[in-house]
Formats: sequence, structure tokens, C-alpha cells
Amino acid sequence: MEEALTTANDAMFTANNLWILIATVLVFVMHLGFATLEAGFVQKKNAVNILFKNAMIIAIGLLTYYFIGFSLMYPGTNAGGLFGFAGFGLHYPEGPAIAYNGAMTYWTDFIFQAMFAATAATIVSGAVAERIKLESFLIFAAVFVAICYPITGMWKWGAGWLDAAGFYDFAGSTLVHAVGGAGALAAVILLGARKGKYGKDGSIKPIPGHNMPLATIGVFMLWFGWFGFNGGSVLSADPVGVSLVFVTTCLAAAGGAIGAFFTSFALFKSHDLSMVLNGILGGLVGITAGADQMGPTSAIIIGLVAGIIIPFSVVFFDRIKIDDPVGATSVHLVCGIWGTLAVGIFGAKAGLTQLGIQLYGCLAIIAFTFVFAFVVMYVLKVTIGIRVSEEEELKGLDLGEHDMNAYADSVEQGAYNLSVK
Amino acid sequence: MEEALTTANDAMFTANNLWILIATVLVFVMHLGFATLEAGFVQKKNAVNILFKNAMIIAIGLLTYYFIGFSLMYPGTNAGGLFGFAGFGLHYPEGPAIAYNGAMTYWTDFIFQAMFAATAATIVSGAVAERIKLESFLIFAAVFVAICYPITGMWKWGAGWLDAAGFYDFAGSTLVHAVGGAGALAAVILLGARKGKYGKDGSIKPIPGHNMPLATIGVFMLWFGWFGFNGGSVLSADPVGVSLVFVTTCLAAAGGAIGAFFTSFALFKSHDLSMVLNGILGGLVGITAGADQMGPTSAIIIGLVAGIIIPFSVVFFDRIKIDDPVGATSVHLVCGIWGTLAVGIFGAKAGLTQLGIQLYGCLAIIAFTFVFAFVVMYVLKVTIGIRVSEEEELKGLDLGEHDMNAYADSVEQGAYNLSVK
Amino acid sequence: MEEALTTANDAMFTANNLWILIATVLVFVMHLGFATLEAGFVQKKNAVNILFKNAMIIAIGLLTYYFIGFSLMYPGTNAGGLFGFAGFGLHYPEGPAIAYNGAMTYWTDFIFQAMFAATAATIVSGAVAERIKLESFLIFAAVFVAICYPITGMWKWGAGWLDAAGFYDFAGSTLVHAVGGAGALAAVILLGARKGKYGKDGSIKPIPGHNMPLATIGVFMLWFGWFGFNGGSVLSADPVGVSLVFVTTCLAAAGGAIGAFFTSFALFKSHDLSMVLNGILGGLVGITAGADQMGPTSAIIIGLVAGIIIPFSVVFFDRIKIDDPVGATSVHLVCGIWGTLAVGIFGAKAGLTQLGIQLYGCLAIIAFTFVFAFVVMYVLKVTIGIRVSEEEELKGLDLGEHDMNAYADSVEQGAYNLSVK
Repeated sequence: MEEALTTANDAMFTANNLWILIATVLVFVMHLGFATLEAGFVQKKNAVNILFKNAMIIAIGLLTYYFIGFSLMYPGTNAGGLFGFAGFGLHYPEGPAIAYNGAMTYWTDFIFQAMFAATAATIVSGAVAERIKLESFLIFAAVFVAICYPITGMWKWGAGWLDAAGFYDFAGSTLVHAVGGAGALAAVILLGARKGKYGKDGSIKPIPGHNMPLATIGVFMLWFGWFGFNGGSVLSADPVGVSLVFVTTCLAAAGGAIGAFFTSFALFKSHDLSMVLNGILGGLVGITAGADQMGPTSAIIIGLVAGIIIPFSVVFFDRIKIDDPVGATSVHLVCGIWGTLAVGIFGAKAGLTQLGIQLYGCLAIIAFTFVFAFVVMYVLKVTIGIRVSEEEELKGLDLGEHDMNAYADSVEQGAYNLSVK
Repeated sequence: MEEALTTANDAMFTANNLWILIATVLVFVMHLGFATLEAGFVQKKNAVNILFKNAMIIAIGLLTYYFIGFSLMYPGTNAGGLFGFAGFGLHYPEGPAIAYNGAMTYWTDFIFQAMFAATAATIVSGAVAERIKLESFLIFAAVFVAICYPITGMWKWGAGWLDAAGFYDFAGSTLVHAVGGAGALAAVILLGARKGKYGKDGSIKPIPGHNMPLATIGVFMLWFGWFGFNGGSVLSADPVGVSLVFVTTCLAAAGGAIGAFFTSFALFKSHDLSMVLNGILGGLVGITAGADQMGPTSAIIIGLVAGIIIPFSVVFFDRIKIDDPVGATSVHLVCGIWGTLAVGIFGAKAGLTQLGIQLYGCLAIIAFTFVFAFVVMYVLKVTIGIRVSEEEELKGLDLGEHDMNAYADSVEQGAYNLSVK
Repeated sequence: MEEALTTANDAMFTANNLWILIATVLVFVMHLGFATLEAGFVQKKNAVNILFKNAMIIAIGLLTYYFIGFSLMYPGTNAGGLFGFAGFGLHYPEGPAIAYNGAMTYWTDFIFQAMFAATAATIVSGAVAERIKLESFLIFAAVFVAICYPITGMWKWGAGWLDAAGFYDFAGSTLVHAVGGAGALAAVILLGARKGKYGKDGSIKPIPGHNMPLATIGVFMLWFGWFGFNGGSVLSADPVGVSLVFVTTCLAAAGGAIGAFFTSFALFKSHDLSMVLNGILGGLVGITAGADQMGPTSAIIIGLVAGIIIPFSVVFFDRIKIDDPVGATSVHLVCGIWGTLAVGIFGAKAGLTQLGIQLYGCLAIIAFTFVFAFVVMYVLKVTIGIRVSEEEELKGLDLGEHDMNAYADSVEQGAYNLSVK
């Protein structure tokens, strides 16, 4: 008679928990999205390297978040504070069957959050592509995702001081995206531009990505994953809540595409695919902070503005010689800031007060992250070094770090092998 | 004590709504499927162009459906009629928390339907690939998805005259696929064939797609999305309903592969991957109209027949010089008609009467769509033009419209940049 | 008043059934994962062939499982026995609305299991790539998936003799992966190595895969699907059960990446992407037998060990001249055995007794499968032949079996076509 004892609460808990698990799967796919987007936007000679980094980052992210990140981000104590730690590994005060918010198990809570954690480091990987030393990047990523991301995350989502101050960031325009973008900016400043990117005469050379279909797959996969990123951040399967978030998220992405389409055509007199792709991502980053607080029209405006920002931002960073092969700083840092501020303009508590708090919280997190990333990267620079040799950069990191080509020419290879026999 | 008030109805509503949201995510992925399928089937020099169009179509589709499409398709009035309009934007007569059918919120209803809307235009994009002007196509797509698709959709799903007449189309063999295919046919007729496709001596030149892995990814992604396309069309998470639809959908796809395998081998004495891929899609399109009304054996037969149709249809269209680079007319129009008729053969009300109604409804929608698409495309042709110059077609639309290559040769690019420095 | 009659049991049944349907969708995606992984790891000249095989296998798998496989695997009789058969097609003793375990419909049960069935044959396809005759492989795959997989599957999951003996295999480290791997081993032994792989002087020539981004997409897609493969094997949406499985599955995959990272660097002094990718897969295969029985730390250890095994195993098989282009035997057979034994080390009934049962069951299934596959492949070898001609192998199976190139050079093609006109 087990079934007869099922209550409506049990069924609701099961449905709520199920949605967060599915959202976890969707956020996982974002790592494939980043991997393909970044691989598509770099040169052919560095594609294996970026894929390798992305395969490792998800592993590093999950393991470090298990060992310390989760306990740093959700210490369960020190409400309103700057820092807390619940101890190594997982700790479930009420048993594994139920997490804080009562709509999912502790395991679900952990794995959903763990999928978020690695994204911050992945954002960095695109910006530093094509010239960073593999080992240095992996060490940086491990420290960044294990310590920096959870600490600033705790400030808001772990009931820390910014949460107490009224700062709002629904799914992480600042906590995930601007954090990743700020880390990227610090890393790029220390690393310098790719050889040949900026001429001595002030000229800027485009270094086009080697595989646009791959980059496009990446953007669609990221949008796909964003349904879980934003939708799962409702932290239950609440019908109105999740469905509204789906609507605002999609309309903002669409707005981003349209904004980037017209702006890039006006600026460059051509239909630049990479701008539209980054416009979509900019729209998604922009809506993330307030996806649960907007109506559809506000969401479209937020996305449109993000899409308009993207081409200007990409040009701006190029002008100041911040060489970011995939546009990660524009997408994640700039549109992350825009999205965070947009909560103060279009959100439930819109107004100058909220806008001020949003700006304040956003800058506090970016400042901490920038300094943290800068220090870690600087220590790596003066110890084991962070940049590959000029020779390795020229021939590509795939041969330099991996002894592999992304696209082996099989016909020749086969002929070679047959000749040996 | 909030939890104590949860009722079984609440839990069921949450589960139902959750499934439609997840189905929305799956239908979204179909746009990635179309993008990669079409990109793989065109020439390398036009890959950026097709990716660009697909990235824009989803944005255009979502926004136009928000502004007018949804209100045209589900006017909520004029039952049994030809046309209705609920006004610009979204209107929820019973509040956003509940939509007509009582199993989802209004937001869920909108976003699920919105994902369908853009697919009709995407189907066109494959057929007109490699020679249509980008701006003309985008304008066509916007008008087609904003006005034509919702009006014919209203005839059945919006409780219009075909619904009253007993016409049945579960998930859109006609309402989505044949509509897209009929629009494609009209566009291709006005646009003409690609240069060099049909020789003056009556010869037909194959122009093979440039990337078969990409095309294969596309077909798997489309099948993946079809779980949501058909499964979500149950409009609830009803266990028997959704699971039966999964079974019939998958078995029809499998039947399509087998049918195309044997037929294409018999016709061409070779194992043509593109035929098997289109056979799978044909099977999926074929089962879509009656996926909820069949047993597994009927589903297999429907898929088999669709798979057998595909090679014959592709050859037929080539013979009459309808140049469709991806086979969209064969897959979506021909198999869409087949699937719609199959409801009259294998469905719950199978018989000559139902078959007649199916034929009648199908032809009515195709005729309207064909004329609509023809007129729009004709107006574009005589105003801004719809075809790129012969020179642009020869060098490729990627350079002509986008100043980009899909696959930049990074080694040369890098060397070039270094030489500048 | 229909809604008023909804019970908590109804809502729970709907949520449970929904999860298994979604898990079905995820397992389906694994076929895309295998297709892209295998395509990426073979030479360019054989890419169409491997894609064609993977598109056909899913169709063959679904249809044979519908006609006989499901009835062989779950005969519903002969508990504790070696063999049973419920008859051709589907049979639902309690009606289609409810399956054995009371948490899903019969249709759901069937389609979830059907998605598993084809994976065993897909595993073989990678190992025999680049030299097997297409028709021979397809016949082998049909027989293997229709008869061999369901019979050994019945021994455990169909309540057969190994289930009675206390053998445990949660989601198929042995029943799916080692079965596929054992079939692959038998096939490779009969087929022989690719031309040029092993020099007469004992040298081993690497034949690198032609598309690392494609292979990486494959691994991410497989991990993505594994959420359903393992998570769905809970056979309900039980919150603690499914979420624990998600945690152990992901941590094992992460452990596999780390283990392969360090081991391959120690062995080869380079960061080999294919090793890390296979390390992830090894970790996933390893955790599959006991994903519901472990804590996170055990899962990490199981993954780490699997990751360490991979490079040694790949080198070992190469030394004994078992030529497996994608490493399927290492990933699926070796790590499948490891995962099955790990249940006896870390599982709920860990100890020498359980370890012995695990070893015994694992070997029994592998032995049966190996002999079965060997006999089928041998019969094919002495009748229609299993290996393409040396000439065809040299020029590639894409031209030999399919008259296609995976990557048609569109510029030349276009010029050619224009010259004709």
C-alpha cells in the first residue's frame, strides 16, 4: 500500500526536484556551448588547446566545488557577512533528502550549483585563448572557481552582505557572467595581445575564427542551456515563475540578435555573423539578473540594448588593445553590468535607490574579482610564466602543448602509414 | 504551513506545465538542427550565410509571434471562422497563470507555440539557399511567420473553419511542415535554380553539401527536438498520451531510415547518406499529423512509406528543375501531405470521409500558403530584388553578404598578421 | 469536474513517467554522441561511412527491439532462468497504461529500454571503423542488438539467473558497455588491423582522427545523455535516488578526466586530448554499474581509476595489435569490467562475496557475448565477407561505399558546374 500514502506534497516535491535536475543537465550543456563557441572563434592551429581546456574546466569545476566551493558559497552561517565556510566536502544539516529551500534534495542543490561554478572559469578561457600556457591556465581556473567565484557568490546567494543590502541578481548577470568577464579582463591585461593583432602603426588586424558553424553551434547550445540557467534559478518548478523566465529569456536573446544586426550593419556595412551571435549572448547575459522580474517588453528592450552594446564594446576593447579573441569581456562583463543595472530600471523595485544598490554591488564584486584574478595571474606570471613562447604561438598551441592537429589530413596520413608498411 | 495547502491538482498542474516547458526547450533545439542541416548541405562558400539566416529567423520568429502571431493564431474568438485577431502583444483572458486548456500557464502556452512559429520560415531558408538576397529573405521570413503561418494555423489549432470541418493535424504535418514546404516551393519557383545546376543539354549536376558531419548533427538534433514537437503537442504530461507519441514518433523515424536506405540503394546503387538523413526527417514529418492516433505498426508503415517517397521526390523535383539544395520540399511538403493523408488511413476515424477531409484541409492550407508566399516574394522580386548577382553567387554569399569565410585559414591569417607587425 | 478527481498518486505517476520519458530523450542523444565521437576519431576519408552506420543503427535498434528484443529481454516469465520470450511485438499484461514497476506506462518502459538497446551495437561500430564492409556490419548489428543484447540483458534486468545470483549492474557497465566492448573485440580480432597501422618491424603508427572538435562534441553529448542513461535507470523520479545518481555520475566523469590527464602526461609527456576525452567516458562507464550505491568520494575514486586505466589500456591493445580506432574496447570493455567490480568494492554490499559475484556475472556475460559476436562475424566472413578491398580501404570507404566525400570542396564544385553550363 506504499502508493496510497503518497501525498500531494510528495508529488510536488518530486516535480520541483525534477525540474532542477533537468535544469542541471541544461546548464551542463553550456560547457559544450562554450567549448564549441570558443573553438570556432579561434584559429585552426589552437582549436585542440581550447577544447582541451574546456574539457578540463568542467572536471576541475565539479571537483573543486565538491571539495570546497559549495561550502564556501553556502556556508549556512554568517548571514549578512563577507565570508563563511561549512567545511570540506558536502554538509547537509537536515539530511540529504531536503535542501534549504524545501523544493529539492541536497544532492540536487549541490549538482545544480556545481554546474554554474565552472562557467565563470570557462568565460576566462575564451578571452585568454591562443597564447596562454595550458598549465598556468588550469591552475588559475582551479583557484578562481574554487575560491573567488564562491566567495563573491556567497555575498548574494549565500545570504551575505550584498543580499542584506538589497542587491538583486536573479541568475547571475554579475555573480557568474561579470565575475567571469572581470577575471578575463585581468588575465588579458597581464597576458598581452596575440602577436600581430595590433600593428606598431596603430592598426588592428582581424584574426577571424576558423570555424563559423562550430561557433554557431556554440551559441545555440548556450541559449539551450540558458533555459536551465535562468529557468532553474527559480529553484522550483513553479509554473508561473519558470514560464515567465522562459519568455523573458527568449525575448531578450531575440532582442540581442536584432540589436546587433542593425548596429553592426550600421557600423561595418556588412552582416557580421559573429556580432549577431554575440548579440544573442549579450541579450541572454543582460536578462539574467532580472529574468523573473520583467514583462516581455522590458525583456526585449534589455536584449536590444545589449545587442546594440556588443559591436561598440568589441570595437572599444580593440581600440584599447585588450585582445579578446571571442569577445568574452563584451558579452559577459559589459552586458553583465548592463543586466545588473537593468534590474534597477525595469525590475520590481525599479528606481534610483535600487539602481544605486545594483551599481554598488556590481562594482564591489567586479573589483574583488578583478583584483583576485590579477593577483593569481601575476603570481603565475612571475613564477612558472603564463605565456607560451613566440615560436609556439606562431606554430600554434595544438602542436606546442598537445602534439596534435585539430584536423589531421587523413589521406596523407593513410598514405604515409602505407608507405611504412 | 504553505506546503500543507498543496493539492493534487497543484502538483499535476506543475507536472503538466513542466513538460510543456521542456518540450519548448526541445523545439528550440530544432532551430539548431535546421541551421546545421542546412549549413552541411550547402557549399562551403555559403555556409556563413545560411547560419546567419537561421540565427536571425529564430529572433524574428519569436518577436513577431509575440507582437502579432500569437494573437492571430489563437484569437479566442471567431470559432469556425477564417480569421481573428486578439490585438497586439499578449492577452490572457483568465490571467497569466492559466491558459485555455488548463494544463499550463499562459506564458508556457505562448513560448511553446512561439518556438513552432519560426520553424515554418526556417524550412524555406534551406530551399532558397545559395542564391537569395539576405535582406529579401529576412523580410519574407518576417511576413511569412508573422501573418501567413498564424492565419492557416488558426484554421485548425485556433478553432477555425478546418477544425470545425473535422480536419485533423496533431502536431503540424500540414500546419507547420507543408506550410513551410509550400512557401519554399513558391520561393524557389520565383528565384530559379542555382547557376550551373541544370545544364542546357538537360543534364543535372549534383552540387554536394560541404559538410556531412554537420548535416548529420542537424538530423539528430531535429529528431531530438521532435520529442518536444510531437510530445509537447499532447498539451499535457498525460502519461499514456505522451509515451505513445514518443513510440510512434521514433518508430516512424526508424521506418523512414529503412525505407530510404533500400529505395536509394535500388535507385542509385549506392548508400547515399543524404537520402537516409532525409528519410529520417520524412518519417518524422509523416508521423506528425497523427502521432497520437496510431499504434506502433502503423507508425512504422507511415515512416517506411515516407522513406520510400524521399528519393523519388528528390529526383522528381530535380527533373522539373525545382532546385532545392536541402530537399526541403520533399521532406516537408511531400511527406507533410503524406502524413496528413495517413491520418485518414490509419487514424482513429480512418475511412474515406476522413481521408477526404484531410486532403481538402491540406490542399486548402497549401494553396493559401503558396499564393501568399508567391505574392510576397514576387513583390520583393520586382522591388528590391530577391537574387544576388551572378558574380556574388559564383564567389559565394559568405564573401558577398558577410565579408567572411566559414573556415578562415588560420595559419595564413596568422602569417599575414605577423608580416604586418 | 475531471480535475477535482486528480489524486496525489496520479500526480506522482505523471512526474515519474515524465522523468523516464525525458531520460529517453537524453539516451537518444547518446547516439548523436557516438556518431560525432566516432566520426571525429576516424580519418576524413571514412567519415561519411561512420555517420551512415550510426544513422542506421538507431533505426535498426529501435525496430528490432520492437519486434523481438523487448520481448526477449523482459519476457515476464522464467524468473531466474537463461532465456524467455514473450512473443513478437509488444505485450502489456496489465494494459498499456502501466508497466511492471508501477512508475511508468508500458510505452514509456519500451521506448526507454529501446534507446539503450542500440547503444551496444554502436559501441562496436567505432572499433571496426575504416575497414568493415557496410552491409556486413549492418547485418551484424541487427543480429547483435536483436538477440545477443536482450538475452544477456534478461539475465539481470529481466529477472534471470544472474539477478537471482545477486549480481548487480545498475545501469549497464556490463549489460550495455562491456557487452558492446566484447562484441567489438570479437569483431576486431576477425577483421584485423587497418592497413599500415602495424609495421612489419613491430612499429605502431598513429592514425590520428580527422576532426577533434567533432570528437569533443561527441564526448559532451555522451555525458549529456548519461544523465538519462544513469538517472533514468532509477526507473522513477525519486528525488533522492535520481539526484544522488546525478552527483556520482558527474563526479566520476570529472575524476576520469583528471586521471587520464595526469596518466597520459606521465606516459606521453604531452597533453593528449583524445586521452582526456576517453578518460571522461571511462569514468562514466565505470560509475554506471553502481551509480546509485556510492557516495561522492567513492564515485571520484572510481572515475579516477578509470581515467588512469584508459591510457594503459589503449597502449596495451595497440601492443597486442588489436586495432580499435576510437578506443571502444578500452572505454567500454575494460572500464565496464572495472565499474562492475567496483560495486563489490564500494557498493552497498561491498565485500569479497559481492566482488566474486560481480566478477562471475561480468565474465559470464562477456564470454557469451564474445562467442556470439565471434560466431556471427565469422559466418559473415566466410560468406559475404567482412572487409573491404585494400584498394577501397586506401581511397576510403566514403567513396567506396557511398560515392560521397564528407567535405566536398564547394568552390571547385561550383566552378565545375559553371563550366558545364
